[in-house]
Amino acid sequence: MDIRVDIGRIRKDIEALAEFGRDPKGGISRPSFSRADLEARAWLKDRFAEACLACREDGAGNIFGRLEGPGKTVLAGSHIDTVLNGGMYDGSVGVLTALECLRRIKEEKLPLVRALEVVSFTDEEGNLVGDFLGSRAFTGTLLENVPFSEPSLTGRPLQDLLADAGLSPASVLAAHRERPEVAAYLELHIEQGPKLEAAGAPIGIVERISGKNYRRCSFVGRADHGGTTPLNLRRDAFLAAADFALRGNRLVASRHPDGLMTVGSLSLSPGSFSVVPGRADFTLDIRSASAGTLKDMGRDLLALADEVAAARGVTFLSRLADATEPVTIPPALVALLEEECDALGCRSLRLTSGAGHDAQIVSAIADSGMIFIPCAGGVSHAPGEAIDWGDLEKGANLLLRAIIRLASRGS
Amino acid sequence: MDIRVDIGRIRKDIEALAEFGRDPKGGISRPSFSRADLEARAWLKDRFAEACLACREDGAGNIFGRLEGPGKTVLAGSHIDTVLNGGMYDGSVGVLTALECLRRIKEEKLPLVRALEVVSFTDEEGNLVGDFLGSRAFTGTLLENVPFSEPSLTGRPLQDLLADAGLSPASVLAAHRERPEVAAYLELHIEQGPKLEAAGAPIGIVERISGKNYRRCSFVGRADHGGTTPLNLRRDAFLAAADFALRGNRLVASRHPDGLMTVGSLSLSPGSFSVVPGRADFTLDIRSASAGTLKDMGRDLLALADEVAAARGVTFLSRLADATEPVTIPPALVALLEEECDALGCRSLRLTSGAGHDAQIVSAIADSGMIFIPCAGGVSHAPGEAIDWGDLEKGANLLLRAIIRLASRGS
Repeated sequence: MDIRVDIGRIRKDIEALAEFGRDPKGGISRPSFSRADLEARAWLKDRFAEACLACREDGAGNIFGRLEGPGKTVLAGSHIDTVLNGGMYDGSVGVLTALECLRRIKEEKLPLVRALEVVSFTDEEGNLVGDFLGSRAFTGTLLENVPFSEPSLTGRPLQDLLADAGLSPASVLAAHRERPEVAAYLELHIEQGPKLEAAGAPIGIVERISGKNYRRCSFVGRADHGGTTPLNLRRDAFLAAADFALRGNRLVASRHPDGLMTVGSLSLSPGSFSVVPGRADFTLDIRSASAGTLKDMGRDLLALADEVAAARGVTFLSRLADATEPVTIPPALVALLEEECDALGCRSLRLTSGAGHDAQIVSAIADSGMIFIPCAGGVSHAPGEAIDWGDLEKGANLLLRAIIRLASRGS
Repeated sequence: MDIRVDIGRIRKDIEALAEFGRDPKGGISRPSFSRADLEARAWLKDRFAEACLACREDGAGNIFGRLEGPGKTVLAGSHIDTVLNGGMYDGSVGVLTALECLRRIKEEKLPLVRALEVVSFTDEEGNLVGDFLGSRAFTGTLLENVPFSEPSLTGRPLQDLLADAGLSPASVLAAHRERPEVAAYLELHIEQGPKLEAAGAPIGIVERISGKNYRRCSFVGRADHGGTTPLNLRRDAFLAAADFALRGNRLVASRHPDGLMTVGSLSLSPGSFSVVPGRADFTLDIRSASAGTLKDMGRDLLALADEVAAARGVTFLSRLADATEPVTIPPALVALLEEECDALGCRSLRLTSGAGHDAQIVSAIADSGMIFIPCAGGVSHAPGEAIDWGDLEKGANLLLRAIIRLASRGS
C-alpha cells in the first residue's frame, strides 16, 4: 500500500476556505457562528457531500463527514474557526487534510475495518465562552455553568449565536450523546512555535500537550489625582500589576523553566491621563506539560501577587476562568506515527505542544495523537502565518498512513 | 466694610447643582454638553437671572453673569463640568461662591469701579478633546487643529455636541473676540490634595500651578502564542511598559522630586489570554511647577523608554497630546489674598497646585489668583469628594473680600 494525498486538492481547499472572513484589518476573522463562519460551514458541508461522505452536524455545531465501516470510528480533523485577525492554516490544515485522506481512501476503495470520520470542531479558539466548546461538548466534558445567556466575548450571548446556526443550549449539552464510539483521534496542525523550523524537520510528533490555567486577576488600589498625589502616597494598581508581571516572569524563568506565563490583556480604571489607576484588571495564562509544575507555578505566582499587594498597599483578587490538564499521548500512538513517518522517509521530531488542541480534549474518551508541521518563524494567530506546501504534503501523507493503520485489521 | 457671604445659600446651590448628572455607578457624571450638563447650564442661567446678573454665553459655551460697572472686568468662577463618576465640589464651589459674592455685592449696593463677572468655563475637565476648551477659547489660546469633527472622548464628534448647545466650531474659534477686558481673575477650588488637611489650614493660597505634558505612548513588540513562545524569545510589549513605568517612577522620585508621573490608562493588543502582547498603548502624564524640571524629566523619561525598548527588542513611539506651562501667580496677588485672609482671621498656607485649573489658562491674559479649600483625605475626581462647609465659608468670604479689593478705587 503506497497511496498518497493530492496536495493540489488540499491547497485548493485551504485557499478557498481562507476566503471566508478575510478581515480588512489583516488576516482572517472567522469566530464560530459569525456570518463568515456560517458561510464557511456551508462550504465545508458541500465539500463533504462532494466527496460522497455522509454529513452530520451535532448539537454543538461540530461537523462530521463519515465514510461508513464496521466497528468503532477513527476520527481525524481539527477546527475551521479562527482568532480575530488570525491566519489561514491554524485548524484548517487539520480538517482539510483529513478530508483529503478520506477522499483518497474512498477513491482507492481500501477495505478497512473501521468507520472513518473527518471532523471540524466548533469554537476551538474560544472566541465565545472559552476554548474547546465543540470538543468539550462532543466528549461530554463541558465546564459547569456554560454562560449561554451572558454576553459572549463577541458581545452577543452564546444562545443567540447558537440560534443563528439552528442550535440551542440544550442541543449543546446533549451533543455527546450522539457521538459514535471513537477508536482513535488524529489531528494534524501547524506547530505554532519555532522548533521544527529551527531543526529543519518537516514533521513533529506530539508526545505531550501542555495544560493551562487561565485566571482573571485584579489589583485594587486607590484612584488619586495624578497632579496632586505624591508618588510615595499612591496606591497605584498599575504599578502593582507591572511589578507582578516582571517579577512573575523572572520567577517562572528561574524556578519553573518548563512553565510559561503570559499577561495578555490588561485594563486600568478609571483610565484617564491624570488619574492614578485605582484598579488594574488583567488576564494570567500559565502553562506547563507537567501537572506538578502547573500546580507549583500557580501557587508561587499567587503568593507573589499577595506579596506585591502587601508591599504596595493594594489588594489582589483572582479567580480561575478556565483550565485544562496536561495530556500525555499514548506511547503506542507516538510509535505508530514515528514508524509511518520513517516509512515515508521523513525526518521527525518529538515535541511538546504548548498550545492547547482539540486532541487534548478528545483524549478524555479515546487515544488521540497529533502531527505538527512547521510554520514560518513559529508565527501563528496572526495574518503572517505561513507554511511550506511540501511540509504539509508530508504531514498529510503521514496522516493518511496513520488513519489506514488505525482502521486496518490487526490495529 | 465687613460684608459676609451667606453659606446657606451657597450650600443650597451646590446641593441643587449636584442633582444634575447623578450616576447610578456612583458620584456625578456631567461632561460638558451631556444632557445633564445642558440641564445644569439652564439651571445656572436661571440662578444668574434670579440674582439680577446680565447673563451671557460666548461661542465656546462659557456662561457669564455680569454686574455692570465702569472700567475693566474683575472675573471670578471656575467650571460646572465633572469627570465621569466625579464629585460635587470640584469646579462647582468656584462658580457658586463667585455667584454668591456678586449677589452680596449687589445686595449691599457697593460702589465699585470695575464690572464684575461670574464665569463657568466649558469642559475644564477635558472630557471632550482635551482640558480647558472653554478657558482656552476665552483667552484665544486654543491648541492648533482642535479635532472638531473626529469622535471626541465621549464618542460623538465635538461639532455635534456643540450643535446640541447651539454652538459651532466657528463660534468656538471666535469666542475670544467677545471677551471684555479682564482686570483680574480669581478662582476658588478644592485643593484636590492632602496638604491643607494635614496642616489643619482652612485656606490655601496658590503661588504656582504645575505645568504638564500629556503623551500618548506605545511599545510595539511582537504578538506571539503564549503557549508556545519561550519567555526569552518574546518581544512582550506589556513587559516593556511595565519596566518603563516602574523604572520611570523611580527615576522621577530620585532625580526629579519636584515632578510627578502617572501612567493612567493602558491597553494591550491583540489583548487575549493566550497571546503575548504585540503592542501596549498607554498615557503618560508628567507634571511640575518648574519649567526646567518638566523639560528635564520629559527628556529623561523618553531616554529611559528608548533604553527599555532597546533592551527588550521592542520599539517605543510617543507623541505629545497636550501641554500646559507652569504658571507663577503674581506676588502682589498672592500678597493681597494673604492680607485679606489675615483680616478674616484665617490661617492660610501657600501652595503649589499640582492640578491644572482655568486660572492657569486665564493667566495668559490677566493676573489670575487661586484660593484653595481642603477636601477630605485629598480625594477628588471620585464620588467620595467631601468638604467642610465652614472651610468653604471662609474661602468664600476671602473671595468676596478679594473681589471687592480688586474692584475698588485705588486697586
